Amino acid sequence: MKAAVLHEFDEKLTAKEFVKFEDVTDPKISRPMDVIVRIGGAGVCRTDLHIVEGIWRSKVDVKLPYIMGHENAGWVEAIGPGVEGVKVGDSVICHPLVTSGHCLACRRGDDMHALDSSFPGINANGGYAQYLLTGQRSLIKLPKSLAPKDVAPYTDAGLTAYRAAKKASRHLLPGEYVAVIGAGGLGHIGIQVLAALCAAEIIVVDRAEQSLDLAKKCGAHHVVKADGNEVEAVLALTGGHGAEAVIDFVGEGDAIAKGLSMTANGGYYYIVGYGGKIDIPTIDMITSEKTIVGNLVGTYAELVELMALADRGLVELHTREYRLSQANEALHDLHHGRIHGRAVLIP
Amino acid sequence: MKAAVLHEFDEKLTAKEFVKFEDVTDPKISRPMDVIVRIGGAGVCRTDLHIVEGIWRSKVDVKLPYIMGHENAGWVEAIGPGVEGVKVGDSVICHPLVTSGHCLACRRGDDMHALDSSFPGINANGGYAQYLLTGQRSLIKLPKSLAPKDVAPYTDAGLTAYRAAKKASRHLLPGEYVAVIGAGGLGHIGIQVLAALCAAEIIVVDRAEQSLDLAKKCGAHHVVKADGNEVEAVLALTGGHGAEAVIDFVGEGDAIAKGLSMTANGGYYYIVGYGGKIDIPTIDMITSEKTIVGNLVGTYAELVELMALADRGLVELHTREYRLSQANEALHDLHHGRIHGRAVLIP
Amino acid sequence: MKAAVLHEFDEKLTAKEFVKFEDVTDPKISRPMDVIVRIGGAGVCRTDLHIVEGIWRSKVDVKLPYIMGHENAGWVEAIGPGVEGVKVGDSVICHPLVTSGHCLACRRGDDMHALDSSFPGINANGGYAQYLLTGQRSLIKLPKSLAPKDVAPYTDAGLTAYRAAKKASRHLLPGEYVAVIGAGGLGHIGIQVLAALCAAEIIVVDRAEQSLDLAKKCGAHHVVKADGNEVEAVLALTGGHGAEAVIDFVGEGDAIAKGLSMTANGGYYYIVGYGGKIDIPTIDMITSEKTIVGNLVGTYAELVELMALADRGLVELHTREYRLSQANEALHDLHHGRIHGRAVLIP
Amino acid sequence: MKAAVLHEFDEKLTAKEFVKFEDVTDPKISRPMDVIVRIGGAGVCRTDLHIVEGIWRSKVDVKLPYIMGHENAGWVEAIGPGVEGVKVGDSVICHPLVTSGHCLACRRGDDMHALDSSFPGINANGGYAQYLLTGQRSLIKLPKSLAPKDVAPYTDAGLTAYRAAKKASRHLLPGEYVAVIGAGGLGHIGIQVLAALCAAEIIVVDRAEQSLDLAKKCGAHHVVKADGNEVEAVLALTGGHGAEAVIDFVGEGDAIAKGLSMTANGGYYYIVGYGGKIDIPTIDMITSEKTIVGNLVGTYAELVELMALADRGLVELHTREYRLSQANEALHDLHHGRIHGRAVLIP
Repeated sequence: MKAAVLHEFDEKLTAKEFVKFEDVTDPKISRPMDVIVRIGGAGVCRTDLHIVEGIWRSKVDVKLPYIMGHENAGWVEAIGPGVEGVKVGDSVICHPLVTSGHCLACRRGDDMHALDSSFPGINANGGYAQYLLTGQRSLIKLPKSLAPKDVAPYTDAGLTAYRAAKKASRHLLPGEYVAVIGAGGLGHIGIQVLAALCAAEIIVVDRAEQSLDLAKKCGAHHVVKADGNEVEAVLALTGGHGAEAVIDFVGEGDAIAKGLSMTANGGYYYIVGYGGKIDIPTIDMITSEKTIVGNLVGTYAELVELMALADRGLVELHTREYRLSQANEALHDLHHGRIHGRAVLIP
Repeated sequence: MKAAVLHEFDEKLTAKEFVKFEDVTDPKISRPMDVIVRIGGAGVCRTDLHIVEGIWRSKVDVKLPYIMGHENAGWVEAIGPGVEGVKVGDSVICHPLVTSGHCLACRRGDDMHALDSSFPGINANGGYAQYLLTGQRSLIKLPKSLAPKDVAPYTDAGLTAYRAAKKASRHLLPGEYVAVIGAGGLGHIGIQVLAALCAAEIIVVDRAEQSLDLAKKCGAHHVVKADGNEVEAVLALTGGHGAEAVIDFVGEGDAIAKGLSMTANGGYYYIVGYGGKIDIPTIDMITSEKTIVGNLVGTYAELVELMALADRGLVELHTREYRLSQANEALHDLHHGRIHGRAVLIP
Repeated sequence: MKAAVLHEFDEKLTAKEFVKFEDVTDPKISRPMDVIVRIGGAGVCRTDLHIVEGIWRSKVDVKLPYIMGHENAGWVEAIGPGVEGVKVGDSVICHPLVTSGHCLACRRGDDMHALDSSFPGINANGGYAQYLLTGQRSLIKLPKSLAPKDVAPYTDAGLTAYRAAKKASRHLLPGEYVAVIGAGGLGHIGIQVLAALCAAEIIVVDRAEQSLDLAKKCGAHHVVKADGNEVEAVLALTGGHGAEAVIDFVGEGDAIAKGLSMTANGGYYYIVGYGGKIDIPTIDMITSEKTIVGNLVGTYAELVELMALADRGLVELHTREYRLSQANEALHDLHHGRIHGRAVLIP
Repeated sequence: MKAAVLHEFDEKLTAKEFVKFEDVTDPKISRPMDVIVRIGGAGVCRTDLHIVEGIWRSKVDVKLPYIMGHENAGWVEAIGPGVEGVKVGDSVICHPLVTSGHCLACRRGDDMHALDSSFPGINANGGYAQYLLTGQRSLIKLPKSLAPKDVAPYTDAGLTAYRAAKKASRHLLPGEYVAVIGAGGLGHIGIQVLAALCAAEIIVVDRAEQSLDLAKKCGAHHVVKADGNEVEAVLALTGGHGAEAVIDFVGEGDAIAKGLSMTANGGYYYIVGYGGKIDIPTIDMITSEKTIVGNLVGTYAELVELMALADRGLVELHTREYRLSQANEALHDLHHGRIHGRAVLIP
């Protein structure tokens, strides 16, 4: 099959070609629960750039060459002998983790914390390709309203944004505020989820006017240009108290310190983006009684919930399509801030 | 009246006398809800040492000379004209915050986040004295089983430990672990609260053998000497996963980084002690999906709950009594690690 | 002052005049926290009909003659010497309970479960009058966007509907369903609150076409005529499972049994309306693992939250105005199903 | 193999022999995930008497003759080709439900609400036999400290009591009360779980002195003889308020009305036992704001949690052993109130 393959890391992201579009061996069914999916769409994620940079080398065991692409949807092409839940031809979206389902975390529904799992596109071959090897437990059948290429980015960008926004919506009350930092691929979904799941007023902070425009279309009640005075702006909008929830989709540079500063006392700072550091004196955590919450993808059930929102049109992805052969162009456009919404590779 | 008064800061804590035992003007009733309490016991807290060091200068507005002591219990001496809930002679314990009760935080029961409050012993004159000015909303009547001098440290050390342990107990399940860092004034109460409120196995980490002995008496199931290998020891006890909750009563030095390292994926790190810094890459928060929780004293209702535990003997304070005139001796003993449990000043 | 006074019970509701419009003594400030409110609007509630019927005689201690009206808003006319939170002339909405604030329920924010409270219009003189005696702790200042006569019914009808809908919204997930039985005075608010607080699909069941039309305007996604087959209709809409939450604003006749039947296994049946009986074999509760939830008004903080929704236009009351002198007309119109939304008495 | 087989219903429970001890065909592996367990112990449950009475006929599809016994533990005898989690010879306890794991309820961890499941001993052949057919997803490996015959009743009696007590422990605070009605097979486990999971004071109500003695050994703080005045006794113990949680393991006769009456306003009545009816006016549910909670077995993860309590000795089963050939004797002893704790059939 054809695939866009990563052959070497590039710490400064200066190469013209991050991946090579070439022929590789087709994946094969080897275990009873294996499923091969013909890719209809594969999302392009900032994490892919971080993988190219080599940031993930110390976190996961990846051997080059390999195929990135952890946001996948398509059609069932082949199934292992034990598979019951899906059949060949079904259109499906792939939960990013492939788990065995035996461990206690799986039995509690916390798929991300499975003791035994793989993450295609991160630590196994992913979906920048014509076919993907995954497992029965990862697949959700799509309603007819949703085409694979239009929903692929929900599996990671969407699911991660959904989980963080859902956690926040559990405590956000009418009269309270939520500040979203970054209205990009994840952020623009997070804003829509917040608007669907709670009645807090939504403030969106971003550097780019285009992203702020997108934020308004997604349901932001207030937008704040990240021009250095964003903390003051958020405090002014919230009567001086700060936002009861801050969801930081940037997670690097000064976004972190500013995000924590715009969090109200007793409030929650959700960290989703990464690359930077949290650096805060313990005395400030205590006197403010803030909570800092890490967020990792989401559960299978949460992806089902997100599909329900998408099916009803309560969440819409803003995508830009590229051919699989144009993977480098998509990655460069993302790197240079030219994508507002999410890039998707199609066959 | 007699009081132990702080006249100047001492950043290195080298002075022989931190406070002066001297005569000061008696407090007076000036508002309808004011209450004057004759002090039966005033707890001596590490925060008092931090006040002497000047650490709190930038956080709260204190003018010297003033009287420390934020853990107070005693008997009602005089009441303002609007006071209904207590009468002269009642034995009472004082919630550390004096609030008006009007704001939304108060109406929701979050007394610590009141918009309008004072904190005697922190930003107003406290209980290192014969009499204390407080307000009706701060007072809880004591059952006959509990004498003021024996319970005074519950108001801050106890309440703070209770609130953090209670938060942890809400998610700790049988088969899970909680690690407590520091079995001192707060920690030894936290351990007892955990033992009363949940069935997780309790691991206590401390540098001092005496504190570990106290921890065992308080209900610790495992103790770990903080000798540099405490993370490895906790991982070994927890099957390599770490503890689902870590409560850090130290909050300075390497306790913080170690506390975060011994927290299981998906787990919670509760920060109670202070003086140091939290310093963690955002990628580590995301891949581990940990949560960092700040903790600030506790609510009025939580102090009532803690008194219920004390009344039934489920929590016991290990105290050492000093005369009010011996305040400096108590502070020095605390500073030099000679107190295992909590020091209390009595009249 | 003028008031509409109840002089005798009427079990069959056959009288032409339930109340008499007459002169009564003005209320007076007697305690430090008392407040007198000049009524701008007083909601007319089905509970008022139940009071006339004598249903509440065994529940609360009422002596006739007295003044009904437990949904009140207006302007502060006079304040007691201890009142700080409001001043004469403020426009305010009145939480229905007058509490002292001392008991543990109050300190936890559960105003409805105060040990020491009165409920003007239920067990004390209410707002079918020119002036109302209440207390400082009951008053919320209105934003300029909201006039007293337009918001009065929020204090009980609105607050009760809000609390039940908020409880349901805490567990309702995207892809799930909530069925609302009865789209009248409470129901039409409950529907709007559900639409604001969660992303479940809302099914509304009512006998009257006009109420179903109102339900659609309020945000119902599906409406079902209560024609005897409403359980089957709800099961059909929910894939045979039933609704994960059912909120029953009727609570009498066959609504109860039907409401329980249309509740999904593991789901919640919220009972708000009353007059009938819950009658279900324990084996059915066990095999279905359903939960039945009683609902009583709401907290002060919840009324603040509801006002935030109203201020932003997320909830709108459909009211019909009557002069105070027309109280009987309003009560009869309610009794005979001629009010779709809520009746309000204005001075 | 040998089994104790039910051949006909007996509505009045007057037969001498409810089941026949006889030879039947051995169960066989037919699907990849099937597992056959050699029974080490099978608990005898009041539900078995209800099955004999025919109460369950309308709820589940059972064809006679069949084998009862839904509380099973033993050793893995044979496994299907797809089984990975256990191997022949492992000592295991069997979660009572056999599920495929595909549906959303399973993926959320709510095994009891699986769309596709069987319940051996209820709607399929159970463990009153030498061998039992179950599935991989039902098995939990036992620690060496626990022998199958000593833990079998945990799978249903224990798990059901655990789940109800765990739900209650989530909201029970120090200073609050929980009343347990019935200290039999389930109740005596529920008491121990409550003592392990929360610090509420435990009041146990039972008719039999022997059961009250057992309750005290299990951790009850107060016991009340069910002599007709049990509501008054519980109100007296709780300062007139009632218990914040009532767990009713009886669920028939006057236990239900009394259980609801001894529930505090704002409190929770957990129904576990069955046979009777809940019959309460909606007005009483509203003015008291009580919640009635149905309880159905528990999840796989909850059985793991319960095993953790048992492994640490925090919960102990009081069992009485009978040979499989003595099944009728065990059933009769249970029927006539001669078992305090739980009967277990051993091979």
